[in-house]
Amino acid sequence: MSQLMRVNMNTKEISFEDLSNNKDYGGFGGRGLTSMIVSKEVPPTCHPLSEKNKLVIAAGLLSGTPAANSGRLSVGAKSPLTGGIKESNAGGTAAFKLGRLGIRGIVVEGQAEPGKLYCLIVNKDGATLHPADEYKGLKNYDLVEKLKEKHGEKVGTISIGPAGEMKMSSASVAVSDPMGRPTRHAGRGGMGAVMGSKGLKAVVIDDAGAPKIEYTNFDAFKEAAAKLRKTLQTHDVTKPGGGLAVFGTNVLVNIMNEAGGFPTRNFTEGRFEGAEKISGETMHDVIKERGGDTTHAGCTTCIIQCSNIYHDKDKNYVTSALEYETIWANGANCGIDDLDSIAQIDRLCDDYGVDTIETGCAIGVAMAGGLKEFGDAKGAIELLHEIGKGTPLGRILGNGASVTGQAFGVSDVPVVKRQSMPAYDPRAVKGQGVTYATTPMGADHTAGYAVATNIMKVGGYVDPLKPDGQVELSRNLQIATAALDSAGMCVFIAFAVLDIPEGLEAIPEMLNARYGLNMTLDDVTKHGQAILKVERAFNTAAGFTNLDDRLPDFFKEKKLAPHNVVFDVSDEELDQAHNY
Amino acid sequence: MSQLMRVNMNTKEISFEDLSNNKDYGGFGGRGLTSMIVSKEVPPTCHPLSEKNKLVIAAGLLSGTPAANSGRLSVGAKSPLTGGIKESNAGGTAAFKLGRLGIRGIVVEGQAEPGKLYCLIVNKDGATLHPADEYKGLKNYDLVEKLKEKHGEKVGTISIGPAGEMKMSSASVAVSDPMGRPTRHAGRGGMGAVMGSKGLKAVVIDDAGAPKIEYTNFDAFKEAAAKLRKTLQTHDVTKPGGGLAVFGTNVLVNIMNEAGGFPTRNFTEGRFEGAEKISGETMHDVIKERGGDTTHAGCTTCIIQCSNIYHDKDKNYVTSALEYETIWANGANCGIDDLDSIAQIDRLCDDYGVDTIETGCAIGVAMAGGLKEFGDAKGAIELLHEIGKGTPLGRILGNGASVTGQAFGVSDVPVVKRQSMPAYDPRAVKGQGVTYATTPMGADHTAGYAVATNIMKVGGYVDPLKPDGQVELSRNLQIATAALDSAGMCVFIAFAVLDIPEGLEAIPEMLNARYGLNMTLDDVTKHGQAILKVERAFNTAAGFTNLDDRLPDFFKEKKLAPHNVVFDVSDEELDQAHNY
Repeated sequence: MSQLMRVNMNTKEISFEDLSNNKDYGGFGGRGLTSMIVSKEVPPTCHPLSEKNKLVIAAGLLSGTPAANSGRLSVGAKSPLTGGIKESNAGGTAAFKLGRLGIRGIVVEGQAEPGKLYCLIVNKDGATLHPADEYKGLKNYDLVEKLKEKHGEKVGTISIGPAGEMKMSSASVAVSDPMGRPTRHAGRGGMGAVMGSKGLKAVVIDDAGAPKIEYTNFDAFKEAAAKLRKTLQTHDVTKPGGGLAVFGTNVLVNIMNEAGGFPTRNFTEGRFEGAEKISGETMHDVIKERGGDTTHAGCTTCIIQCSNIYHDKDKNYVTSALEYETIWANGANCGIDDLDSIAQIDRLCDDYGVDTIETGCAIGVAMAGGLKEFGDAKGAIELLHEIGKGTPLGRILGNGASVTGQAFGVSDVPVVKRQSMPAYDPRAVKGQGVTYATTPMGADHTAGYAVATNIMKVGGYVDPLKPDGQVELSRNLQIATAALDSAGMCVFIAFAVLDIPEGLEAIPEMLNARYGLNMTLDDVTKHGQAILKVERAFNTAAGFTNLDDRLPDFFKEKKLAPHNVVFDVSDEELDQAHNY
Repeated sequence: MSQLMRVNMNTKEISFEDLSNNKDYGGFGGRGLTSMIVSKEVPPTCHPLSEKNKLVIAAGLLSGTPAANSGRLSVGAKSPLTGGIKESNAGGTAAFKLGRLGIRGIVVEGQAEPGKLYCLIVNKDGATLHPADEYKGLKNYDLVEKLKEKHGEKVGTISIGPAGEMKMSSASVAVSDPMGRPTRHAGRGGMGAVMGSKGLKAVVIDDAGAPKIEYTNFDAFKEAAAKLRKTLQTHDVTKPGGGLAVFGTNVLVNIMNEAGGFPTRNFTEGRFEGAEKISGETMHDVIKERGGDTTHAGCTTCIIQCSNIYHDKDKNYVTSALEYETIWANGANCGIDDLDSIAQIDRLCDDYGVDTIETGCAIGVAMAGGLKEFGDAKGAIELLHEIGKGTPLGRILGNGASVTGQAFGVSDVPVVKRQSMPAYDPRAVKGQGVTYATTPMGADHTAGYAVATNIMKVGGYVDPLKPDGQVELSRNLQIATAALDSAGMCVFIAFAVLDIPEGLEAIPEMLNARYGLNMTLDDVTKHGQAILKVERAFNTAAGFTNLDDRLPDFFKEKKLAPHNVVFDVSDEELDQAHNY
C-alpha cells in the first residue's frame, strides 16, 4: 500500500490516505505526485510564502525497490523564485526509505506559529511532529549531526539551513546521502524557503523494521530491473569505467568548454581559459592524491556512482557531490579557476542551504555589477558567508540572480521565469536553450537535457549550433524526463536507455510488475505529457503566458564566442514546444 | 509648431521633428505622448535598463499656455519596477518652459558609455549634450544649485539623484519648482533608473527669449481659460480658502483616518492613533509658527497652491511639497507620528531621488519583516541614508516594496504589478482598490482617483465600503485622467470640473482654440480611452494578463479595522474595468 501523509502545521495533526484508489494522485509518484497535488490544491495566485502554499515531498513510483537509480526525491510547491509550479529533485537516501515505509508523499500544509520550528519524525509506526526550536539557525551539517545523535546514525534526513529559515528564494532542501551527510539538495526554485515558511526545520526518516515491499509479480520485477541494470552497465556514458563513473559529472567541463558552450563570466563568453584547472580530469587527480573518493554513490540504489568526496590539502573532508553545475556556476561563471575555493563554496552552499546554481549565477551577476572582480575567489567565499549570516547583501544574493540584477542595476541577467540558467550557454547548445525557455520550471537543465543529443550524441545527434530540430528534441526529452521524475529515476539513466531499447522497456515493465499495471512505452509518454500539462495549466492560472517561455533578449542579440552565435530558435517554434 | 526632440545617447546626436502632421503622435501630449511613443517604439519584452528602452519626457498639450494648472510634466518608459508601460508625472516649471520653447516631447534613446554622465541643455536655439561627469553622485539639491550657478537662476531642471545613477527601481525624476528647488518628482515606477541607465544626469531648460505661443483663436482661448479659472476658484475643494489651499493635500490625513481607510503599519489597520500629530491642521500650525509657507504653488500656472514650505524648529528650510502621500507612507504606514522626522525623510527622498510612496512602503514592509520597529523614526531616517549611500540594504529598499518583501520573507506586501500602494486602503475605499488593480500603471492613486467620489462626494457618491458601482466609477475616472494627463493638467482640477460643467467644457474649448480643433467632450473621452488602450496593449505584449489586474490575496482575506471589511469587488467585475 502506498500512502500519502498530510501534516497540518497549524493544528499539528498528521493523517494518512491510501493512494491505491485515489483517482487523481494514485498513478503518480515523484514529480508527478508533487505537481498533481500542487496543481489541484494550491491556489495559483497565492503568495508562495503564505499558508495556502503546500510543500509536497514525494518518493518515486519505484523508490524503495532495488531498481537501479530509483532513489530520487521530489520536492514541489509554488515557487517563491519563479512564482510558478516547481519540482526540484535530489538524491540521497530519503526517497528509498520513504518507499520502504510505504509512504509515497508528504504534504506539508498551513504554517506553524511565527518563529517556531518543528521536526517531523517518520518511522514504521507512523509520524510525529516535535518542537525543534533548539535547532534554530543551525547549518545543515551541524543539524544532521544532532539529528543522528538523537535518532540514530542510519536515519535519512530532509532539512533546511539558515537560508530556508530566512525564506530566501534560493534556499534548498537538503537530503542526507548514504554517508549520512546533507550533501544532496533539491536546490532549485526555493523549496527550502517554502519549508521554512511552514516552520518545518527537518524530516527524519527511520525505515528500521519497515515491512517488505509488495510486488504484484516479483519475478517479472527482478527480470526488468536486471535489464535496466545491464543497460546502465553497458552504455559508454554510464558503465563502470565510463565518463560519469571515473570523473563524475565534472567530466563535462572539458567537453562543454571544447564545445564553446561553457558560460564564462556571467554568460559573456563560451570558453574559459581556466577550464583545465577545474576540469573533471584535474579534479580526479586532486581527489586521488588527497585520499578522497573519485566515485561514490550519492543516492541509494545508484549504480552509476557519479558523486565524489573532496578533501582539502590536509586530506580533511570538505564536501561531497562536487558536481559539474556547481563547479561551473561558482567557477567559470565567476571567472574562478581554483577548485579548492569552489569546493569550499559548495560546502557553504550545502551548509547554509542554498542552490549552488542560483548562488553562482547571483554572484556572477553581482560581479558584472561591479560588487567584486571576476576571478575573486576569496570575495566569492565572503559573499557566501553574507548569505549565511543573512546580512542585507546576503539577502540580495540569497534571493537569486534576478533580484541581484535588480539590486545592482545589471540588465544582462541569465534567467528564465526568474530562475537562473545552468552550465550550458543556450546560444551554443540550442536544444538546451529551448528547454530553459519552455520548461514550466524556469531555466533548468534536467527538465529536458538536450546536451545528451546536442553534445554527447546520445539518442541521435542534433547540431547544437543550428536552430533546426531543437524544439522537437527538447519536447521529447521534457516528456520523457517528466515520466522518469515520476518514477523516481535518475535523469542519467536517459543516456543509456535512449540508446539501448531494452533499458527503456524495462521502465514500464518494472512499474507493471510492481503495481499490477499494463503500461506500454506509449503510456509512459502519456504519463509525462499529463504531468507537463498540469504544470503548464498551473502556470497559466498563475499569470504566465507564452512570453514567459522566452530567453532574455541578450541571448538573441549578443554573439557568443568562439562560435559567434546567438540564440535563433524563433518564438513561433518555441510556442510549439508543448504541442502534443 | 510643436516639436519632438530626439536625443541619441549612443551617437550624441540631437534631432527635431515637427509634430503637427505626425499622424501617430500629433494629437497627444503629456502621458498621451509618452505612452504612444513607448508603445510604438519600445520592444515590450526588452529589459527596462537596456538601450532599447526609451525615456520620454513630455509637456502637456496645454503646457506653456497660461491655462490654470496646465504645467504637469510626464515622464514615460518601460518601467524597471513593474515591467510594464509607465507614465509618472510631476509639477514644477519644466513643462511650462518646454511648452514655451515649442517642445512637446524629448525622447532619450540608446545609452551613453558605461559610467559616463551627460547633461542636456535646451534653450531657444536648440539643444546640446555636454559631458557631466563632475556631477557624478550629486544629490538633487546640490546638483540643481550647480546647474543654476552655471546656467542661470531661472532655468528649469529635470534631474536624477544618486538613486537614479544606481538604477534603483524606485528612483524618481526630479523637476525644479518655481523657487528653483528639486522638490517635484515624477516618482513612480523608477523613471529615474531609466534616465540613469541612459547616462543622462540632468536636463536644463532655459526658456529666455522663447517666441510667443501661437493660438488659432487667442480670444476663444482666453475665454475658455477664464471659465476654468473661475471653476477652480468657485469649487469648495479647490477655491482660495478651500481645503487644498489652506491645508494642502495633507488635509486628507484626518479625512482618511476618520473614514477608516488610512493604512497603518503596513496595511494592517485603517486608523492611526497618531493621525492628529501628522494631520494637515497640525502641520498648518507648525508651518505658520516657524515661518514656512502653508500655501504655495509647486507648478507654474497653478492657482490651487496645494504645496507648502516646511521649516525646522530653528526656522530653517527643510523641504517643500510635503504632501499627504509622503506623510502617510513614511508616517502612519511606518507607525511614525513625528512630522519633523517625516519632513526630513521627504527631503532625503527628494535629494537622493527616490519615490516617497515606494520608499515609505518599502520601509513599512521591512518593519513588518523585523528590520526595525514600527514607529522608529530615527531608524527610518537611517534607512534613507542606506538608500542614498547605495549599501546593500539601501539597494534592497531602493528597489521597492516588492523586492524588500522578498528579501525579508514578508508575504503581505501591498503592491500591484510590483508597484506599492498609496495612502488609501483598498478595503475601505473600494473604488480606489479597483484603480490600483486595473490601471496599467501598477498601484497608483492618481490614475483614477476614486477617493473623490467615495470619500469627498465629488462627482456624486459611491459608498466606499460596498463593492457596488466601483468598477464603473474607476473606469470613468481612469479615462478622464488619461485625457487630463495628456493635456498636462493637474489631476486636482477634476474635483472642480466633475461638479461644475462649465469647467469641464473649458478643456476641449482651450484645446480647440489653441490648435484649431473641433473636439467635443466626447472626443476627450475617446482620447483618454485611446491612451489606456495602447498602454494595456503594451502590457499584454510584455506578458501581463488579467491576473495582473488583481490585489494581493491578503486584501481579500484579512479584515481591516475599524470597518472590518475585505476587498470584495469580484475578479469578474475587475475584468470589466476596461470594457469600453
